[in-house]
Amino acid sequence: MPDAPLNIADASFDLIGIDGDDTLWHDIGNYNLTEEKYRTILSAYCDLENMGDILLKTERKNLKIFGFGVKGYTLSLIETAIEITNGQIKAEGIQQIIDLGKEMMSGSIDILDNVIEALELLRPSYKIIVITKGDLFHQEAKFARSGLTHFFDGLEVVSNKDVQTYGALLSRYKIAPENFLMVGNSLPSDILPVLELGAWGVHIPYHTVWEMEHSDKDISDISRAVTLDNLVDVPNLLLGDK
Amino acid sequence: MPDAPLNIADASFDLIGIDGDDTLWHDIGNYNLTEEKYRTILSAYCDLENMGDILLKTERKNLKIFGFGVKGYTLSLIETAIEITNGQIKAEGIQQIIDLGKEMMSGSIDILDNVIEALELLRPSYKIIVITKGDLFHQEAKFARSGLTHFFDGLEVVSNKDVQTYGALLSRYKIAPENFLMVGNSLPSDILPVLELGAWGVHIPYHTVWEMEHSDKDISDISRAVTLDNLVDVPNLLLGDK
Repeated sequence: MPDAPLNIADASFDLIGIDGDDTLWHDIGNYNLTEEKYRTILSAYCDLENMGDILLKTERKNLKIFGFGVKGYTLSLIETAIEITNGQIKAEGIQQIIDLGKEMMSGSIDILDNVIEALELLRPSYKIIVITKGDLFHQEAKFARSGLTHFFDGLEVVSNKDVQTYGALLSRYKIAPENFLMVGNSLPSDILPVLELGAWGVHIPYHTVWEMEHSDKDISDISRAVTLDNLVDVPNLLLGDK
Repeated sequence: MPDAPLNIADASFDLIGIDGDDTLWHDIGNYNLTEEKYRTILSAYCDLENMGDILLKTERKNLKIFGFGVKGYTLSLIETAIEITNGQIKAEGIQQIIDLGKEMMSGSIDILDNVIEALELLRPSYKIIVITKGDLFHQEAKFARSGLTHFFDGLEVVSNKDVQTYGALLSRYKIAPENFLMVGNSLPSDILPVLELGAWGVHIPYHTVWEMEHSDKDISDISRAVTLDNLVDVPNLLLGDK
């Protein structure tokens, strides 16, 4: 039996999982844009200095009840608006917030640079699926509207990206962890749990990190993980010398 | 090759799918209870004679944007409240509506009569999964809290129960339609699409039907479908003479 490969370029992958939000398409920017419009709605009522902190606190609390996704986020926006305006927000303002949520649910999908080039290079050599966290209905809709479906063998929407979830998914696909590569922008969601399973990870940081996805971990000394700038560097790394 | 079985008791099943809401556990009752409390909140503001129609109209419109589930339903409750009170509802009332949604998300799971007995009888002879529609996070939470997980080989949460969804699921499980039985309370979601695929269906009507799941179809003359009173009649039918 040969030694296990120490280098990602020498590993052999039966399945590549790629994250959706902020790895294939822009996402956090939509939240930031929504929050700008939200501030405009609320600015008629009160000072917004602590708005970000109150919203984050509400989101954290509600995440346990509602899970990830735009619908729970919209409910958190409404609760925060009630709290921060001391109950003075009018029904009209609440409706405007719901309309912001609807805009997010049905907005256009803005694919990141070089994603199509990367997928065109990877597609002939690998089985590839999207593994994305959040709201089933919304993630399916985004995937369908992305124009990327023909590059993938499937879409897996999960409610949480933890070791158990990845483990169950790999055993359903009958893939050994050492033959699985996960690519994504979030260390705690896309990289750390798959490394714990014995799989490989490519971290492609997005220029903004969601507060809820911050991590102090450093993967620079882990041999089964690598940090790259752009999705197109994945085929360059894996297929570079083939 | 033997003739295809004409009778469900003679068919051989490699997989049984069972619906969750109102098949394994009570669900629509929670919506009805929520709507009673909702009426109490709104009754301070206006006449509620047309409330049901306006809510249903809002739900239908929002279903295309938000999909099925409690979070979208809660947003529809808020929109309906704004409309029906002509914008007079106060922030306090909106917060009470959000709290109703939170109650629904985290409420206890009320298992239907004879479900456990039925699953105990079926479990030794069949591979069984729950196939349920709606919000991924909420359905996973309900399944986990139901105390029924050990009876099942898995949970599949789907955004829509149509022919395409069931077809994709069966091919992922490598099950031929003629060896698949779906059990559920909804004709349009649980029975009609699987019959169209060539699979078998057991319809177990719940005493209340959600407006969105009404169907005028009659399955009494379809040989691959049968209507039973209770889930425990399924093992009685399948295992009765074995």
